[in-house]
Amino acid sequence: MSKAIFYHAGCPVCLGAEQMLLNTIDKNKYTLEIVHLGNDSGCIEEAESFGVNSVPALVVDGQVFHINFGAALADLKK
Amino acid sequence: MSKAIFYHAGCPVCLGAEQMLLNTIDKNKYTLEIVHLGNDSGCIEEAESFGVNSVPALVVDGQVFHINFGAALADLKK
Repeated sequence: MSKAIFYHAGCPVCLGAEQMLLNTIDKNKYTLEIVHLGNDSGCIEEAESFGVNSVPALVVDGQVFHINFGAALADLKK
Repeated sequence: MSKAIFYHAGCPVCLGAEQMLLNTIDKNKYTLEIVHLGNDSGCIEEAESFGVNSVPALVVDGQVFHINFGAALADLKK
């Protein structure tokens, strides 16, 4: 079982990506760990060590995928 | 079974994201359709209608997720 880590900061864009990952990730192959960097700032260094530059981001099999770079103002109005 | 569509244009950033999706998506719930917009430019309008602004992007359950906005020059040197 591999671990996928989703880093976010609680904004609507992050939560949308989180829901998508919860729906789509193959739970027979991956455990999804969700880290809120706003609340768990102790994890920021770990995230940086994986190459995370922004949230939301997914780290899987050692690779970083930044999803939807930041929040568009339009999304924050929803 | 839902359909997830991955739009890309063949660059290394796109291919890395494609491999990640092929590994992680729950194939019991989603079929993954992969569209190369460079080769299948007829699909660009469809992609736009989903809200795709850049590639690589994943459309799943009607939502668009842009993954790694564009290619960093550093990635193109790999």
